[in-house]
Amino acid sequence: MVLVAPRNPLNIGAAARAMANFGCSRLRVVNPYEVAFREARSAVGAAPLLASAEEFTTVAAAVADCALVVGTTSVGHRELQHPLRRLEYGARLMRQTAVPIALLFGSEKFGLSNEDMSHCHWLIRIPTVDLDRSMNLGQAVAVCLYELARDSRAPGARPEKMKAAAAADTEQITVMWVEALARSGYIKPLTAASTKTKVRRLVRRLNLSARDAPVLLGMLRQILWKLGGTEQT
Amino acid sequence: MVLVAPRNPLNIGAAARAMANFGCSRLRVVNPYEVAFREARSAVGAAPLLASAEEFTTVAAAVADCALVVGTTSVGHRELQHPLRRLEYGARLMRQTAVPIALLFGSEKFGLSNEDMSHCHWLIRIPTVDLDRSMNLGQAVAVCLYELARDSRAPGARPEKMKAAAAADTEQITVMWVEALARSGYIKPLTAASTKTKVRRLVRRLNLSARDAPVLLGMLRQILWKLGGTEQT
Repeated sequence: MVLVAPRNPLNIGAAARAMANFGCSRLRVVNPYEVAFREARSAVGAAPLLASAEEFTTVAAAVADCALVVGTTSVGHRELQHPLRRLEYGARLMRQTAVPIALLFGSEKFGLSNEDMSHCHWLIRIPTVDLDRSMNLGQAVAVCLYELARDSRAPGARPEKMKAAAAADTEQITVMWVEALARSGYIKPLTAASTKTKVRRLVRRLNLSARDAPVLLGMLRQILWKLGGTEQT
Repeated sequence: MVLVAPRNPLNIGAAARAMANFGCSRLRVVNPYEVAFREARSAVGAAPLLASAEEFTTVAAAVADCALVVGTTSVGHRELQHPLRRLEYGARLMRQTAVPIALLFGSEKFGLSNEDMSHCHWLIRIPTVDLDRSMNLGQAVAVCLYELARDSRAPGARPEKMKAAAAADTEQITVMWVEALARSGYIKPLTAASTKTKVRRLVRRLNLSARDAPVLLGMLRQILWKLGGTEQT
């Protein structure tokens, strides 16, 4: 990752933190504002990779050993001379390639200059709603590295399902719930049958898990005991 | 979006900026560190949505009109009582639902508490490489909102979903259920707090529908009346 002319130590620190979060270890900086760079490096809790960050005076030198150079931009009103890809698609291309990649971020105030961009093969932009409102540098780095790191197949992967409660437990809960309603006067004799059916359907809609069913049964048993009358089993 | 107990004005500002970047307009804060919140609001270049941010004293109030409440966590060593989904998958579920969603972020230092989490239906985690190293708050917000906003090309066919119950109703059911358990002697004084939290989580796992919630409320009201004591509302 290459930060070109960063000026704010908090942003440099945030960029490094995001790199640590997403398993990216090599940070290069081109012409940083020296005070800011020193401050970011010496900050309490600074990511260790800041200590080993390499400093360069030109973009050319910073990307010399990379085979794919990608720039980031918030577009604005500038006319771009480069292919511009949405982050989602650009990241896919980057994930697919096996060559060393340099990902460039410009300064907080001006972004990448045309001269900086001329070193890039293509550009990516983060799909924000307002083209004129740029992202904060630390946040832009976090979003790009997240997109590069995320598992594109994960959206399809189903999480482990909770084991559903056995029908016998679900029915037992239904029976006890109906009994509690009867004892409390909620169920009227005339509509008792249809209320029971409604309760049965309602309990089925709760998607009870095997773990929760015995807990609910215990609670209902206690409530029934308090409501009085003989316990239904 | 709901920030719970944020302490750093820069993070509050960064969260608001990311919201503006990704077209998210309603910010709610629960018990912010007042000085920080004031400072973030009055900062030069503060996102306009900060001015209209709503302040709450409880998570319950902040999510009352939302039907899906999702928490964020960096896991660490905590034992979680909730279904935990990777951001990629959780975001897809959130994009597919039509109900109002609350996305909760905890404080910079401690994240969401167990009590905060008990208001959530489930949790998401950003897939960072190191589970112990949490993300910066502003960056975590940016990454989550980016994932929610990005072009997913998810399969078009969606099953018709039942409309989920509003969080206010879900919480009301929780409160009445806890009261019923208290009156029936299920809840012991020593474990009252943890039982309440357990009940809250259990009720969230039920995936209550907007249709069933008032029915359950009516039933519980009747049971409470029968159990005696003053009725909780």
